[in-house]
Amino acid sequence: MSDPATLSALDASQRLRDGRLSATALTEALLDRIAAREPSIRAFVHLDPALALRQAAALDARAKAGRAGPLHGLALGVKDVLDTADQPSQYGSPIWAGHRPRGDAACVALARRAGAVILGKTVTTEFATRHPGPTANPRKPGHTPGGSSSGSAAGAAAGFFHAGFGTQTAGSIIRPAAYCGAVGFKPSFGTLHRAGMKVMSESLDTIGVIAGSVADAALVMAGLTGGDYGAPAQRLDRAPRLGLCWGPAADQASPETRALLERVAGAASRAGAEVTPVEMPPAIAAGYEAHAAVMNGESAEALCWEMDHAAAQLSKGLRERLGWGGGLGAARIAEGRAAFATARAAFADVVAPFDAILTPSAPGEAPEGLGWTGDPAFNSLWTLLHVPCVTVPMGEGPRGLPLGVQLVAGFGRDREALAWAGWVGALTV
Amino acid sequence: MSDPATLSALDASQRLRDGRLSATALTEALLDRIAAREPSIRAFVHLDPALALRQAAALDARAKAGRAGPLHGLALGVKDVLDTADQPSQYGSPIWAGHRPRGDAACVALARRAGAVILGKTVTTEFATRHPGPTANPRKPGHTPGGSSSGSAAGAAAGFFHAGFGTQTAGSIIRPAAYCGAVGFKPSFGTLHRAGMKVMSESLDTIGVIAGSVADAALVMAGLTGGDYGAPAQRLDRAPRLGLCWGPAADQASPETRALLERVAGAASRAGAEVTPVEMPPAIAAGYEAHAAVMNGESAEALCWEMDHAAAQLSKGLRERLGWGGGLGAARIAEGRAAFATARAAFADVVAPFDAILTPSAPGEAPEGLGWTGDPAFNSLWTLLHVPCVTVPMGEGPRGLPLGVQLVAGFGRDREALAWAGWVGALTV
Repeated sequence: MSDPATLSALDASQRLRDGRLSATALTEALLDRIAAREPSIRAFVHLDPALALRQAAALDARAKAGRAGPLHGLALGVKDVLDTADQPSQYGSPIWAGHRPRGDAACVALARRAGAVILGKTVTTEFATRHPGPTANPRKPGHTPGGSSSGSAAGAAAGFFHAGFGTQTAGSIIRPAAYCGAVGFKPSFGTLHRAGMKVMSESLDTIGVIAGSVADAALVMAGLTGGDYGAPAQRLDRAPRLGLCWGPAADQASPETRALLERVAGAASRAGAEVTPVEMPPAIAAGYEAHAAVMNGESAEALCWEMDHAAAQLSKGLRERLGWGGGLGAARIAEGRAAFATARAAFADVVAPFDAILTPSAPGEAPEGLGWTGDPAFNSLWTLLHVPCVTVPMGEGPRGLPLGVQLVAGFGRDREALAWAGWVGALTV
Repeated sequence: MSDPATLSALDASQRLRDGRLSATALTEALLDRIAAREPSIRAFVHLDPALALRQAAALDARAKAGRAGPLHGLALGVKDVLDTADQPSQYGSPIWAGHRPRGDAACVALARRAGAVILGKTVTTEFATRHPGPTANPRKPGHTPGGSSSGSAAGAAAGFFHAGFGTQTAGSIIRPAAYCGAVGFKPSFGTLHRAGMKVMSESLDTIGVIAGSVADAALVMAGLTGGDYGAPAQRLDRAPRLGLCWGPAADQASPETRALLERVAGAASRAGAEVTPVEMPPAIAAGYEAHAAVMNGESAEALCWEMDHAAAQLSKGLRERLGWGGGLGAARIAEGRAAFATARAAFADVVAPFDAILTPSAPGEAPEGLGWTGDPAFNSLWTLLHVPCVTVPMGEGPRGLPLGVQLVAGFGRDREALAWAGWVGALTV
């Protein structure tokens, strides 16, 4: 039998459930792969192989007793802004060094209930903001993996686990997934409960997953929530109506991103899709303009204790942004949230004629160096709109790093977003 | 000088800021009052007088250095679903017995920054749901204070502190405030950040305050947020346009509640208000019908870890409701959230012609006994609508317990809700 660490979540799940593969053997294989590559990637901030194997053994026993869950034996990486009772939860900040919560975050507890192995905690930037951790891009270690879900993206792309939990306030799931050549899925806002997450912006923060394929992301989401995320690996019986949208930061798209999106749009048309350019009305642009104020204003409230008790342990950049956000005033932040609500209502009309919107995942390839995790310019609009977003890898840029394209659907149409992302991802460009 | 513990927040704040009263003297006076009455009321789950006095001494030093905050020297009770770094945070559950968080909840940290003394942790029902704590109604100890913000309502009514933090998922601020004869204020959803709160329902949970008067509630909210909450103690230059609404649970209003609301409406008319009956459209009723599903469905996610690791330490009633909520399925909960959104849009039209809606705060007086905290039938609609609500005490019921009436305004019109609540509360009925 080939190395079980190379199996997709879908294939591994099938073998785990019909008894051809044990959770222990799969976890061992993943730990071997991690041992070989982790020193250069540094996806984990905490990894205890013995603990992972104990979880796997307990799950094998549970399966023997006939109680295998929908994610039985699959391995998940958990971004370290999500609490874990059995592993440190340090939020990417020295202020929380060594912190061990009493309980699991809701999404982690749901994953355990579903039978997943919580393999380890993955690197996050400081409080899921900008100051980076040590993680490298698995495709080219001198380049950033993106952030803030750096370790979950790098680890999913490197095949360390079947999915990694990520969180997105601006572009922290979609961008790193695209930079690393993985699939990132940000569900509709509110899908995964944020209990036990170190929340920054209540209006924006959204938990999602990064995986090796659209089908694997759907499998994990269905296993976590019991919801219907379709079967994106299956062939669809029609082509989609796609809206082509450059978004409010169109001028920041690199030449390779422009060329890719045009190639994808062309290939989609040839495959039968209707592809129609979409212009965003002013109400949506106004929402986009308010993103920074709401994000930083709410984050300044969330981190009030840290600022007042441990300011010296915050990065300088974060201190400055929190100072700016905290000085905006309650009225301005409330106005920003109102602008978001208006933009959401406007987008419901914009997206109605389409199955999905096709748009860039990021400005271009992952930037060189580990000091900057890249720009969320192509993400923050969709985050504030609360709509489901999927990035799928499509080709490479001039430096040989992965590029992605993003599919966005209307609020609550998560299954459709995944289905059409699968369809687009299968095009030859 | 009279006992400083009898001063309103507004009066105490004035004296603290002009130096006639020290935070230490005020805290000592409150601790004396608490020592006398707490044995029969049991508002606190944790109270450390020495810690409170150390905070007060530090605030006196800060004021001497010219850095008095807007809430300088005022005392707050903190519902024990909100984290405090210097005091246990046990969420009303034996599962979290002795838990000491590393950091403060955002609203607690904001209160400290503003100069408040965090006097102690107040009793909450189990995870702010139904299973009651030991708190008694300060007006009649054989009766419930209501829940889930039991200790903050009882303590505010007993004059133990200038305001208590409460949280509302169904009726947990407004109902206990009304039962205890205090003013309860639930701001527009999202006003106070929930970081460091043991959140149950992300779609509903709202942090607010319970105080001795509308003016005191406004003072505390302004000090916490920097927002404009008006000056509800001041005379207004016109009478309001009020919508009279019995709400979706009209038939649950007791005779004394019916009589009170009619007397209040009559007195408002005589004082120049336009009072117009309001009927709710079906979209709003549909939102109300979805409340239980969203609340219990989301709470089942929030408490997934507790259910899977410590189910025996949950009350039987909570286990049953979580079992029901957890079995509804992701689609039903998402449908409920969509019904909420539709109801909110419909309510924006309903409330537009009015300054505020006048509606009952609770079915009637506080029920007898401490085993049941009463019915949130007159509250859960306004909670899911995300709109600001204020209860003001108006008269008594047949057993001599306080009654309240509730004023509700459009989303974001918190200042107006407080202003018109002050106006209504000053009517003679």
